[in-house]
Amino acid sequence: MTQKLRLGMVGGGQGAFIGEVHRIAARLDGQWDLVAGALSSDPDRALDSAQDLGLDADRSYHSFEEMAAAEAQRPDGIDAVAIVTPNHMHADPSIAFLNQNIHVICDKPLAANLEQAQAISAAAKRSTAHFILTHNYTGYPLIRQARAMIAARELGDIRVVQVEYAQDWLTEEVSNKQADWRTDPSRSGAGGCVGDIGTHAHNLMCFVTGLTLESLSAELSTFVEGRQLDDNVQAKLRFTGGARGSLWASQVAVGNENGLRLRIYGTKGGLEWSQENPNQMNFTRFGHPKQILTRAGVSSDASNQAASRIPAGHPEGYLEGFANLYRDAADLIRATRDDSFQAPEHHIGLQDGMDGMKFILACLHSSQQQGTWVNLLDVN
Amino acid sequence: MTQKLRLGMVGGGQGAFIGEVHRIAARLDGQWDLVAGALSSDPDRALDSAQDLGLDADRSYHSFEEMAAAEAQRPDGIDAVAIVTPNHMHADPSIAFLNQNIHVICDKPLAANLEQAQAISAAAKRSTAHFILTHNYTGYPLIRQARAMIAARELGDIRVVQVEYAQDWLTEEVSNKQADWRTDPSRSGAGGCVGDIGTHAHNLMCFVTGLTLESLSAELSTFVEGRQLDDNVQAKLRFTGGARGSLWASQVAVGNENGLRLRIYGTKGGLEWSQENPNQMNFTRFGHPKQILTRAGVSSDASNQAASRIPAGHPEGYLEGFANLYRDAADLIRATRDDSFQAPEHHIGLQDGMDGMKFILACLHSSQQQGTWVNLLDVN
Amino acid sequence: MTQKLRLGMVGGGQGAFIGEVHRIAARLDGQWDLVAGALSSDPDRALDSAQDLGLDADRSYHSFEEMAAAEAQRPDGIDAVAIVTPNHMHADPSIAFLNQNIHVICDKPLAANLEQAQAISAAAKRSTAHFILTHNYTGYPLIRQARAMIAARELGDIRVVQVEYAQDWLTEEVSNKQADWRTDPSRSGAGGCVGDIGTHAHNLMCFVTGLTLESLSAELSTFVEGRQLDDNVQAKLRFTGGARGSLWASQVAVGNENGLRLRIYGTKGGLEWSQENPNQMNFTRFGHPKQILTRAGVSSDASNQAASRIPAGHPEGYLEGFANLYRDAADLIRATRDDSFQAPEHHIGLQDGMDGMKFILACLHSSQQQGTWVNLLDVN
Amino acid sequence: MTQKLRLGMVGGGQGAFIGEVHRIAARLDGQWDLVAGALSSDPDRALDSAQDLGLDADRSYHSFEEMAAAEAQRPDGIDAVAIVTPNHMHADPSIAFLNQNIHVICDKPLAANLEQAQAISAAAKRSTAHFILTHNYTGYPLIRQARAMIAARELGDIRVVQVEYAQDWLTEEVSNKQADWRTDPSRSGAGGCVGDIGTHAHNLMCFVTGLTLESLSAELSTFVEGRQLDDNVQAKLRFTGGARGSLWASQVAVGNENGLRLRIYGTKGGLEWSQENPNQMNFTRFGHPKQILTRAGVSSDASNQAASRIPAGHPEGYLEGFANLYRDAADLIRATRDDSFQAPEHHIGLQDGMDGMKFILACLHSSQQQGTWVNLLDVN
Repeated sequence: MTQKLRLGMVGGGQGAFIGEVHRIAARLDGQWDLVAGALSSDPDRALDSAQDLGLDADRSYHSFEEMAAAEAQRPDGIDAVAIVTPNHMHADPSIAFLNQNIHVICDKPLAANLEQAQAISAAAKRSTAHFILTHNYTGYPLIRQARAMIAARELGDIRVVQVEYAQDWLTEEVSNKQADWRTDPSRSGAGGCVGDIGTHAHNLMCFVTGLTLESLSAELSTFVEGRQLDDNVQAKLRFTGGARGSLWASQVAVGNENGLRLRIYGTKGGLEWSQENPNQMNFTRFGHPKQILTRAGVSSDASNQAASRIPAGHPEGYLEGFANLYRDAADLIRATRDDSFQAPEHHIGLQDGMDGMKFILACLHSSQQQGTWVNLLDVN
Repeated sequence: MTQKLRLGMVGGGQGAFIGEVHRIAARLDGQWDLVAGALSSDPDRALDSAQDLGLDADRSYHSFEEMAAAEAQRPDGIDAVAIVTPNHMHADPSIAFLNQNIHVICDKPLAANLEQAQAISAAAKRSTAHFILTHNYTGYPLIRQARAMIAARELGDIRVVQVEYAQDWLTEEVSNKQADWRTDPSRSGAGGCVGDIGTHAHNLMCFVTGLTLESLSAELSTFVEGRQLDDNVQAKLRFTGGARGSLWASQVAVGNENGLRLRIYGTKGGLEWSQENPNQMNFTRFGHPKQILTRAGVSSDASNQAASRIPAGHPEGYLEGFANLYRDAADLIRATRDDSFQAPEHHIGLQDGMDGMKFILACLHSSQQQGTWVNLLDVN
Repeated sequence: MTQKLRLGMVGGGQGAFIGEVHRIAARLDGQWDLVAGALSSDPDRALDSAQDLGLDADRSYHSFEEMAAAEAQRPDGIDAVAIVTPNHMHADPSIAFLNQNIHVICDKPLAANLEQAQAISAAAKRSTAHFILTHNYTGYPLIRQARAMIAARELGDIRVVQVEYAQDWLTEEVSNKQADWRTDPSRSGAGGCVGDIGTHAHNLMCFVTGLTLESLSAELSTFVEGRQLDDNVQAKLRFTGGARGSLWASQVAVGNENGLRLRIYGTKGGLEWSQENPNQMNFTRFGHPKQILTRAGVSSDASNQAASRIPAGHPEGYLEGFANLYRDAADLIRATRDDSFQAPEHHIGLQDGMDGMKFILACLHSSQQQGTWVNLLDVN
Repeated sequence: MTQKLRLGMVGGGQGAFIGEVHRIAARLDGQWDLVAGALSSDPDRALDSAQDLGLDADRSYHSFEEMAAAEAQRPDGIDAVAIVTPNHMHADPSIAFLNQNIHVICDKPLAANLEQAQAISAAAKRSTAHFILTHNYTGYPLIRQARAMIAARELGDIRVVQVEYAQDWLTEEVSNKQADWRTDPSRSGAGGCVGDIGTHAHNLMCFVTGLTLESLSAELSTFVEGRQLDDNVQAKLRFTGGARGSLWASQVAVGNENGLRLRIYGTKGGLEWSQENPNQMNFTRFGHPKQILTRAGVSSDASNQAASRIPAGHPEGYLEGFANLYRDAADLIRATRDDSFQAPEHHIGLQDGMDGMKFILACLHSSQQQGTWVNLLDVN
């Protein structure tokens, strides 16, 4: 029996969405125990939340600073901390735990601005701990197969990448816990839609294609009156090596619940995948009929199989994909400590997070300058 | 904080499929701890499996009899046991735990034959414990909404029910742990395809429609040479009140992974749902355009919402549906002990299991008699 | 230039549905000119209709008898007649034209009862003219490819055939020209839904699989109060050679416009096709990913290509499929006269029509006898 | 009976694709007779083609000039001419027939360059004849309903328009009659993909939304080595009034046969339509479930019904949509002559064609200038 790992959490108190997702993801494979938390900046809510989750009272902390210090001292201290606060509250706790050499599993995007991101990066360099960013869509089995297929050149040279992420929940002015911070620049950062979901689209396409985004030309729009941040993003993309792409992200596209879609075309083949039915992916070899590849199906490669729990046709979803990141995190931490464990082939880390921040900023800069092409290397 | 419940397991040792599904389902919402097991009839495998799962050595038992007796004596004994053995091994452990007044969560179908089923039934009547059968497809949020919509007469009087469950994994002769017992009458019972998946189709249509199946005319076929049990089932159905239906189940339908599909038509509307994309359901009011209802979407009713964990468009799948049964089981057990808890509106129990057994037998009898209509009341 | 053929029409006056479909189908490829008609039993409507269609006044006849006699005398008489009357009016005009050795293109089903069907058959045997029955769904390019694939044994031995034809237009009592005769036994024959659409399903599955339907067990239902004919059909099927099947036809399945669907499973592969999106067909070789074959696409065989007019991705529909029957009819007639023309590989003729009549009767007989298996050879 | 109209054709000889499409479209509703042609610049092919089509020998002309002059003199001269030559050969024949006051039905795009387009425009102003451009996708019934719904403000204010047209037939170097002229700037004009299919996407989105495209920022790419024209287009769009959009057109997107797709989002609702299954359209009112509207279905408006021939569920396709343009053309010509006929609500004419030319040029200019926003008013 492999010992379970001990997890702490910053944020994720009552009423939170993504905190509960992280907890389910951590529980699903039975490799993590949630044992400590600084679940809310409101002390009463923090305590109530901790009780709901069955944390020992002495491991429900008033602040992440206190938690980082205390857990680092305990012989049974946490192995990793999940940071599930709004964007502007990613950096300080990340740094606090990295400074204690406690592994950090942080929700995306990396931070609310580049300064914070760079501070995290500096802390990570000083630390022996890993930093893992939960771009959870990379956890889907077919996404991993897509990445492997492209790496194996089954599509030939990539020419065109079309990625989109369409939602409609911000079609009108909304006020609730989830909407409020995402539309508030002081908590979300300068990117609205581009930071919340545009970064997922950006990360996913980079993860799958392995391409380097060289430059982009973007237009951010705000359609709902009074909203301070963008709610629609359109961008043209140029990749190193000559591929071209388009990215569209919207929170006002009526009729779209969570429409993250990725299409990739190369000299030899094409792939098409949609998050809302993630257990299927279309694959066409040029000159041959379109095939429907499935999660854990007859055409699965090793990466698809490894990321699947149950047979084909029994749909796995968002939570299982997210749980794959927690499984990878466990593998990574164990492999760091013990050579008999194998590290995951890949994890989304600081470099990806920094790329995401630069993507956000490049979109903002380009949009402010009438869509001028902005080279990602020039974003600092 | 609500105390977690303690779960034991009979069966589900290394290499099992459905045992691991039960464990994930129990873990997912953090309401159950697996603490005891008689995981295999092979002592070494039992012990290895228990270690993998982190069970205390003294709660890894050599037999379910020993486990039932011992756990009943412990002050921290299990609250419920999950029985995940092949069909012919459902009855004895169920009875052993019921006799100790320990709640039983048993995989479907109820048993390998009617005698076993009746023995379970008798034990349940003597026991204070609940008996829960995991017809897991009833856990899908949209299936629950479908049931509620029909109960609220949104389809009017039901006229036609078309249900099917198509797989292809037994298209050719297969030999592996999963296939072997399912095609062996001594372990599976007299029904092959009809017992393994036909019962799911039967249970789902009854759960959703609320109709009583009155009689059926069936033909069981065995297409793979040398196979001892049926691998294809076709049946016509008559329901009390005049509705008519068809049921098709197959394990040799090439191109189908796990194609459980339900279509229901009434005087006022129609519903169509397919398990492989369970987050959508088509609903048509007669004379109006077809609507796509979604899990947790804008049209969700209370039952859909209650069975959902995350927002619409973030797909939940098979494991989440299964986990809903474990959540219901927890609620049921707690409500039994403490009035402040609310029992679930419904759970699949002994009567459903007995109906499933009679369905299997009616199919067998009808098929042996050239498709004569067999009244379900006449199956004894 | 190949001379156009001259077409006459019986029935199809103002307000008719299928008459106009035949006319469009005949026009589409420019191989037929409509030059004569007995378009309605109402003389005024007949004349008005003829004027609308630009027929010469002297070729708008008061009766089909008159038309058959007159056209047979003309040097520029019609090459073929399209019979598009209600079912009970198929036999007399068919016989009249066959007796004049004028080719007959008759709408399905063959007749309203077996006596009429046999009379047509007898007349055809005496005649030098061809008899063509417009089971138009056999005209779809992918249906022709499906037939060729099965003939080439790409599915291996056929095991299971699931065919269905679901509509909802008769969900409630309806009164209009189309509904009235279809629900009137004196015009439609003893079969309602089974004759109107069940025969299409029957014909299509036989055409594609090449199997002989040996016997069936059926239940016909009438759900709408006061309706004299069935509006729902469920049948189990046994084919010579051991294949099994199910057929469902319904006119009360709310949410279905014209849902003709065919699924065929063999030892080596499976095919799935749906009429409402006829330009795609799923094909799975056992152990390989599902493929989407398309009309005129990269995987098209000769039959698919020959039945297509425009490139893949430019959808062809119902009218083009129907037009393929008129193209075949033209080829057949020309080949009869002139060796330099090639007859079509296949056409739906009297034997298919007789099989359809026996299918209807077998369903009626079986249903009247509680679903007893009725051998098609015993229907006389 | 309404007299049929007489049609002539320039181009469309043996081996042509779009000429045959025009002929089928003209035939389908029985309102046109093809009676004259200058079918090929190769005299032998012209004659053979004319014979194939049954034209009188004296109406198979050696040149369009001759044909325009001769037909204008005949009492039974053509009512309209269809011009189905490559792009660079649209202007001269259009002008010749307009000069004779013969109506012109011209394939898209308007011309190979702006000078030619302006020359046509000037000729049209001098002529009493109509000029009709066959942007055939506007003929689909659901596209017409979409236009009407937006005009009726069912989507509220339009915010986002996503249009795409993806094909894969030019993924590799191809040489055939269709590919050759489309990739040759001397025949196609300076736009490759942007002119061939980008203009369809542009026209369709303008037709449906009623919006004015104000400016665009485009990138044209050529992925196949040695190709002289673009084979991939990505553009950001700004509409008068503030709506934003993206356009993607590609001929190298492996796995796409003819993927023209339009998605439109407004303050109150969203519409989604795909050409490959044109009989369905998704419509979502914000806060309500997605609906599937169908051609001729229960939710059809007058424009959908008027453009449909057969009941819902019987798919109409590309040819029927094209035929609607010929039906409109007939109505337009008749209404011009006779007040008792009603002109169609709309036809695609010179202004649309000029807009299309400016769209092509704006894309070229923008792309040459690194994606600078080009105002459509500045294109001259």
